[in-house]
Amino acid sequence: MDSNTCTMHSHCVQMTMEIHQVVPPPHKSTLQKLKVRLKETFFPDDPLRQFKGQTFKIKLILGAKYMFPILQWGPNYSFKLFKSDLVSGLTIASLAIPQGISYAKLANLPPIVGLYSSFVPPLIYAVLGSSRDLAVGPVSIASLVLGSMLRQEVSPSADPVLFLQLALTATLFAGLFQASLGILRLGFIIDFLSKAILIGFMAGAAIIVSLQQLKSLLGITHFTKQMGLIPVMSSVFHNIHEWSWQTIVMGICFLVLLLIARHVSIRKPKLFWVSAGAPLMCVIISTVLAFAIKAQNHGISVIGKLHEGINPFSWNMLWFHGSHRGLVMKTGLITGILSLTEGIAVGRTFAALGQYKVDGNKEMMAIGFMNVVGSFTSCYVTTGAFSRSAVNNNAGAKTAASNIVMSVTVMVTLLFLMPLFQYTPNVVLGAIIVTAVIGLIDIPSACHIWKIDKFDFLVMLTAFLGVILFSVQEGLAVAVGLSTFRILLQITRPKTVMMGNIPGTDIYRNLHQYKEATRIPGFLILSIEAPINFANITYLNDRTLRWIEEEEEDNIKELSSLRFLILEMSAVSAIDTSGISLFKELKATMEKKGIELVLVNPLAEVIEKLKKADEANNFIRADNLFLTVGEAVASLSSTMKSQSTTTEEAQTIVPHY
Amino acid sequence: MDSNTCTMHSHCVQMTMEIHQVVPPPHKSTLQKLKVRLKETFFPDDPLRQFKGQTFKIKLILGAKYMFPILQWGPNYSFKLFKSDLVSGLTIASLAIPQGISYAKLANLPPIVGLYSSFVPPLIYAVLGSSRDLAVGPVSIASLVLGSMLRQEVSPSADPVLFLQLALTATLFAGLFQASLGILRLGFIIDFLSKAILIGFMAGAAIIVSLQQLKSLLGITHFTKQMGLIPVMSSVFHNIHEWSWQTIVMGICFLVLLLIARHVSIRKPKLFWVSAGAPLMCVIISTVLAFAIKAQNHGISVIGKLHEGINPFSWNMLWFHGSHRGLVMKTGLITGILSLTEGIAVGRTFAALGQYKVDGNKEMMAIGFMNVVGSFTSCYVTTGAFSRSAVNNNAGAKTAASNIVMSVTVMVTLLFLMPLFQYTPNVVLGAIIVTAVIGLIDIPSACHIWKIDKFDFLVMLTAFLGVILFSVQEGLAVAVGLSTFRILLQITRPKTVMMGNIPGTDIYRNLHQYKEATRIPGFLILSIEAPINFANITYLNDRTLRWIEEEEEDNIKELSSLRFLILEMSAVSAIDTSGISLFKELKATMEKKGIELVLVNPLAEVIEKLKKADEANNFIRADNLFLTVGEAVASLSSTMKSQSTTTEEAQTIVPHY
Repeated sequence: MDSNTCTMHSHCVQMTMEIHQVVPPPHKSTLQKLKVRLKETFFPDDPLRQFKGQTFKIKLILGAKYMFPILQWGPNYSFKLFKSDLVSGLTIASLAIPQGISYAKLANLPPIVGLYSSFVPPLIYAVLGSSRDLAVGPVSIASLVLGSMLRQEVSPSADPVLFLQLALTATLFAGLFQASLGILRLGFIIDFLSKAILIGFMAGAAIIVSLQQLKSLLGITHFTKQMGLIPVMSSVFHNIHEWSWQTIVMGICFLVLLLIARHVSIRKPKLFWVSAGAPLMCVIISTVLAFAIKAQNHGISVIGKLHEGINPFSWNMLWFHGSHRGLVMKTGLITGILSLTEGIAVGRTFAALGQYKVDGNKEMMAIGFMNVVGSFTSCYVTTGAFSRSAVNNNAGAKTAASNIVMSVTVMVTLLFLMPLFQYTPNVVLGAIIVTAVIGLIDIPSACHIWKIDKFDFLVMLTAFLGVILFSVQEGLAVAVGLSTFRILLQITRPKTVMMGNIPGTDIYRNLHQYKEATRIPGFLILSIEAPINFANITYLNDRTLRWIEEEEEDNIKELSSLRFLILEMSAVSAIDTSGISLFKELKATMEKKGIELVLVNPLAEVIEKLKKADEANNFIRADNLFLTVGEAVASLSSTMKSQSTTTEEAQTIVPHY
Repeated sequence: MDSNTCTMHSHCVQMTMEIHQVVPPPHKSTLQKLKVRLKETFFPDDPLRQFKGQTFKIKLILGAKYMFPILQWGPNYSFKLFKSDLVSGLTIASLAIPQGISYAKLANLPPIVGLYSSFVPPLIYAVLGSSRDLAVGPVSIASLVLGSMLRQEVSPSADPVLFLQLALTATLFAGLFQASLGILRLGFIIDFLSKAILIGFMAGAAIIVSLQQLKSLLGITHFTKQMGLIPVMSSVFHNIHEWSWQTIVMGICFLVLLLIARHVSIRKPKLFWVSAGAPLMCVIISTVLAFAIKAQNHGISVIGKLHEGINPFSWNMLWFHGSHRGLVMKTGLITGILSLTEGIAVGRTFAALGQYKVDGNKEMMAIGFMNVVGSFTSCYVTTGAFSRSAVNNNAGAKTAASNIVMSVTVMVTLLFLMPLFQYTPNVVLGAIIVTAVIGLIDIPSACHIWKIDKFDFLVMLTAFLGVILFSVQEGLAVAVGLSTFRILLQITRPKTVMMGNIPGTDIYRNLHQYKEATRIPGFLILSIEAPINFANITYLNDRTLRWIEEEEEDNIKELSSLRFLILEMSAVSAIDTSGISLFKELKATMEKKGIELVLVNPLAEVIEKLKKADEANNFIRADNLFLTVGEAVASLSSTMKSQSTTTEEAQTIVPHY
């Protein structure tokens, strides 16, 4: 076959085969790009969309409705809605009162602070919050963390006033931090507490909280101040002589009662009121019992005297002095982020169930503002509680008005019913906490994670063990670090996959995944599955060269030689200057080996940068840049054929279109 | 048209159109996967490949050659190679001697330590190193950082012995750190010092180093101990009365001479010996001059008395006591990583030029071991120097034997020529340093980075400003943090791109990039360009819903409705349990809206996890999982047509195959 025929033949093939150009995206200035990027980073939900093209007055109304969701549902509020909210509000109040008292004790605060915190924050949330189901108040995990962190520097028994001051100040910081996350639209920071971390963390926290309750459940008076599994267990068994059998018997009875009630409600969700009302019933029964048998004389400790009256103002109690300031800020930050995570997660969960939307950043502002106001009115850190919100939803809450009903109920309690609680035994509060937190241990989810993703399981386990063996903040920090490290590792060691042709098509896929896919002799087609940047160019260079060397070794045996290295770039979402230099280097190395480097489907940003970096058209030319692997192989094969003398051979190998 | 005909029609279309299945990759156990992952993470270059299938004896020989590259080139060493190495070795020696003395002064160490460090480490490297061009010895940046960090706690003038002890100990730590990075195959850590960071950092360091030379160039005796731009400049102008005009004149003369020599060599690379020999010439001329005019009596400070003799052993000088230990380890870590980066980068650069390979991890072991031995023999941190390696390469070095020649020359100097240096004026050493470091300021590269990638430019600027205004370690830390943050941000806010059909093909591409691409009515085709994980599921959920809402708003106007959401997953390289939950949630949301969720080309890991998570086949069924967007659209359109009554309309829109 003479060369003239060859050229004509190749020309024919190219005529019948349409080749599509890779084009860079339309030009945009740096400023425009920055604007788009900032918008996508901070306003992915585009909250201002509804304001577009409206008159000033409507904008004002929409703005007010945006800031105060109560203006959205308030005007349409009806007696029918109120009936639902009344029932659910009373139900969650019956849960909130004993839990408020219990959680305050968990935070080493006076029990009444728990009730204060169930009065003011729900009112604020009812005005600002966009969730219909969130039941606001103190929660176990934030209480535990607040109490345990502050106890590192100040003893709640030796200096209760200073301890309360620090708790209120930490609440202020938590609120400011939460609100600023929302205002600065940095809500994505809480996404770094992944679901796997939260499952591990909550299970760990539940165990720690339950262990702390051994103090009240066993009636021990000298209990360790540490939170870890080991010191607590050793404290429990070193103080066996302090165990009070009367307390233990009472504790077991009420614990069994509460667990049965919980079990009933889980089995039959319609009987939600059984577990919702059980804590209050237990408190009433045990208080009457304790009063009747004079429990405090039989080694059963009771809450003791409580003041009547609603929240006193507390801004004069905020503590900004030098000492403890670091601790207070750290505590505020950690309890802030934890309570925010719980509140947002709960809000999102019920919003998805009820088919309405909550705006994460706005919720953060609402929760943050609620805590700032809380810190001025003797409340400690509050958020949307999972257990109470579930009860609220089950009980038929329709709007945030159920929070108002709960709040009013708590107010009535604060004003008139407080003396009744002075005989309530601490052991019952312990039993209520244990029952509440035991639901946080989610074994099925842990199994599910194990099945799907072993690394996520490791992260979960790290959070769990870190929390029970060291501390909440260390456990969380290590788990977040580990999951971030994984992301970085995925970038640092991206997958490069060898692709082959799926017979009878022009589709090219992973040879390892699709067994029917076949190699095209003379071509090495690699897909790079990550952005290319400084962190992975050395690896990509090494790895590509290894592919080529292995290829060359195979080829020596098979007596055919590698002509083209095709890099499929569909999965390369971004590139930086180091990434550009990788291509320059690869191009040079390949040229020395007599292999041509071909790029397929570089995405918008990538082709734009490559073109910019390659003004001399050294490595980005039309003949080594294709839109699909199929077109690249077809076009290059025809070139190869026109150059080679063994045309027939190549022709049988290349897929036809 | 009755429903019977419809079904038949759709059947026909599906018969002619071949639909390919997405299949998960072949099953592998967790252990197998872990093995592959570990291999890719730590052994991407597969260094053991050459050992496969060899006899034990050959394995032993190959192993020895692997450990000691001198065994590879040594046996074939010829007189011809030696001639080349002799010339280049003598050339770099003439540069190494004055630079060694100068850099030791930069590190606040006795000048002779710089020569010690140019004697032992090159010998070690010649045996262990795999680069032919690397000229080993002290370098400016590591010297600067070592000197400035240790000076934070110990004054080199008040307590020179302790300062030297700390410097040697820091060298030991640097060596141990470097070697262990190599042994543990964690070399990718130095990749995090990206090229942009290095350019910014080196320019900053060059300025700081030059500013430090104002002390010798102006003849100031009371100079600040700080490194920052501001304290140095204020120190210079507060001590105007100390400026010595004789020193300044001499400094300017030699500086101009050196800069001219440098300029000549840059213009004509063949005249490399002009700039290579210039420093030694300057030292000789200035020393003779200083001796002749008794310079020290005219306010020109000279080096002063120097001991003769080669490196004394120094293991008894290593300092492991409690005080300063933290600083010494930190200094070792930072100088270790900096000198490693320089050495590896230089080695890689010249290997690429000379078409041979250097193994990063092995180089780290060589450099590390060289510094460990160095710390026992009175040497401080050494590595491959960029300027001297360039001269070495230019002068025709063929093997690491040129390092041996240089080392022997330095040894001769140490044994016999040291007294000659006592009259060398410090101002000349200052001029040599300034000329050497000025080449580190790489303006063209900075412009190139600005043109291609604005964020990389920002990272570079951060490193630059951080180094000149604060400190080397802070500047580097912030710059590395910033570039890592960018990677995380790319993951947290991945691009989602709307795709359209390129007319006349079954190719689907970014609508924004390819203007000819057209939408298919009833379909929303989104490409997700990042791994899906905990850090971005909230964003992806929000963003997808916004796409749909915008779509629905448009559709209201156009009176056609959205039927299918196709997610093109070719760029989703990995997924975790949170990512799986995103699909479950999206599926549920879409079902409520009456839109079907369709996945296209999930990669091996993704389809495997999706299948595992979806045992009930709720969202991964054959009818919503396709290999290409083209097949998905074709297949779904035919289903749509069979259900819809407006068949004709749809038929004109869907591309034909």
